[in-house]
Amino acid sequence: MKKVSIGIDIGGTNTAIGVVDSDGNVLYERKPQMPTPQKMENPGMTQAVSDTLLGKYVSDLTAEIKNAIEMVKNINPEIEVLGIGIGAPNANYYSGTIEYAPNLPFVGVINFASLIQGNFPEFKYVKLTNDANAAALGEMIYGGGKGMKNFAMMTLGTGLGSGLIVNGDLVYGSDGFAGECGHVTVVPGGRLCGCGGLGHFEAYCSATGIKRTVYELLAKYNDSESPLSKIPMSEMTSKVVFDAAEKGDRIAKKVFQVTGEILGRTLADTVHYLSPEAIFLFGGAAAAGDYIFKPAKDSMERHLMPVFRNKVKILPSELKESSAAILGASALVWKEVEKNQ
Amino acid sequence: MKKVSIGIDIGGTNTAIGVVDSDGNVLYERKPQMPTPQKMENPGMTQAVSDTLLGKYVSDLTAEIKNAIEMVKNINPEIEVLGIGIGAPNANYYSGTIEYAPNLPFVGVINFASLIQGNFPEFKYVKLTNDANAAALGEMIYGGGKGMKNFAMMTLGTGLGSGLIVNGDLVYGSDGFAGECGHVTVVPGGRLCGCGGLGHFEAYCSATGIKRTVYELLAKYNDSESPLSKIPMSEMTSKVVFDAAEKGDRIAKKVFQVTGEILGRTLADTVHYLSPEAIFLFGGAAAAGDYIFKPAKDSMERHLMPVFRNKVKILPSELKESSAAILGASALVWKEVEKNQ
Repeated sequence: MKKVSIGIDIGGTNTAIGVVDSDGNVLYERKPQMPTPQKMENPGMTQAVSDTLLGKYVSDLTAEIKNAIEMVKNINPEIEVLGIGIGAPNANYYSGTIEYAPNLPFVGVINFASLIQGNFPEFKYVKLTNDANAAALGEMIYGGGKGMKNFAMMTLGTGLGSGLIVNGDLVYGSDGFAGECGHVTVVPGGRLCGCGGLGHFEAYCSATGIKRTVYELLAKYNDSESPLSKIPMSEMTSKVVFDAAEKGDRIAKKVFQVTGEILGRTLADTVHYLSPEAIFLFGGAAAAGDYIFKPAKDSMERHLMPVFRNKVKILPSELKESSAAILGASALVWKEVEKNQ
Repeated sequence: MKKVSIGIDIGGTNTAIGVVDSDGNVLYERKPQMPTPQKMENPGMTQAVSDTLLGKYVSDLTAEIKNAIEMVKNINPEIEVLGIGIGAPNANYYSGTIEYAPNLPFVGVINFASLIQGNFPEFKYVKLTNDANAAALGEMIYGGGKGMKNFAMMTLGTGLGSGLIVNGDLVYGSDGFAGECGHVTVVPGGRLCGCGGLGHFEAYCSATGIKRTVYELLAKYNDSESPLSKIPMSEMTSKVVFDAAEKGDRIAKKVFQVTGEILGRTLADTVHYLSPEAIFLFGGAAAAGDYIFKPAKDSMERHLMPVFRNKVKILPSELKESSAAILGASALVWKEVEKNQ
């Protein structure tokens, strides 16, 4: 019997569904991804509408999961599905609920794991957590975190997510929501964060943060020669900044220096908390390679107490970006299997 | 058989030694405390001098431990000693070593737990960690953290120490030194910390930090009516500030507000990392009660993401200050017993 796990990642736009073996091979992936139901404009978004959308979504997702299982069993009838891991925003690992997710059309607290489990009573594990926590588990089960008992994962996307591994397990905290490092204060009174707070880590060290730093530096230096000055904020991406840096643009290089400085200082904080063996960076912003890793490492070392210096690695995630969401979610199942051995 | 644990706290000036039962009753305590050997001025502090001082210290400490055991056995011959827990600066739980402790006269890395274990081969557990980690264990075994699986302990003394409990165990990290929250950056480019860093938590939210805030505010407001303006920095204490606040002094009240604001913001960071059930404050600065707890709580709530609001308690430690060091160290043994059950 070849054992597999199903990974589901619920994004604001699409839902990814895949079947993964214990080595991290994606045996099946739904392509294109399934659309996630969208929020209706107020006052359309009532409890009744939410219930209807949720009912249909669970039913569609169930059909997709059944289809995925059929697909892999067609290839290998000996396959045994151990469970379903779900990555979702505002997901509570302990209760299996999605709670007040601002980018999903579901009102209040949704017993999502139970709804799915109800349709698959044969599976021992239907577990859910947020996408960054899932990514950390994915790194531990399939990626560079294999064999590590203490590490941190920072996902630098539109926002900044994090998953913390302590003593070989994910830190869920007392309520199931731990690991929200994107919202620690790194510049008191600084940039407005999407959550309403000021000076949060994700307002500086995410793809969005990099974009904001571009315009902060353009404002500061008024450098009309920089190719970045020709691009409106709505079209700016980390990739554009990377390309400009590659061509020697001073503003672009400075953007990565500034970002790396704050990133490194904050990772030093992470080390003072948890003393991890490594910190993995994942996502578009991390793809800038040495432009971001080098200043981050320099800054981290400078901000560390002597006892922690030259010990902690900053590493690129080994999860492939295209399948990371499915891998992370599916890793939840392997982790449960391990815990219950 | 009544089971007991021996707690030893190695401070820069004195070493506390006590015998504690599983309910946290101190059955014996060495009074006065035993002196810790002092560093000689350079170039007196050579490896040979270090070795001699260490040899004598271990031998003296061994005699004191034997005496302590005899004392409690005189009262109750049925007593069984399960082990020795040691709180020490720069202590590594995993290796049992004290490493490059700046305030102790021992050069380099000292295999302290082994040296003690060698003299007490009959004990299953001789364990060592730093004093703040020990305090967190003390809170978990004997104090307000009983039954909690996730909490943080902040000890606000001359410096600021911390111990983090995740999933029911202390976070030691990959190298045994985790939980150094006193050295996270809370004001980028801010006050010089004792460790050489800038803007660290302990430079603001410790007894020393409170003192520094007094003079920062006196400098800012030039308030010659404040009784605090009559006291030289060398004589300022948290207690003096507390007394002045009680008498209505505006500077003193503002000192606690400023301290509480930074404390609360940083505790919010701790919550974003670990989502603890509670954060315990211990030490002289925490003795200021509502002057510090109220602004800290207000600030923490303001800096939390909505999902964490009104969940996390800030509580005074339930360990008595006079015996906390011994209790914390002795708790290491009960924790090992629990782990090995």
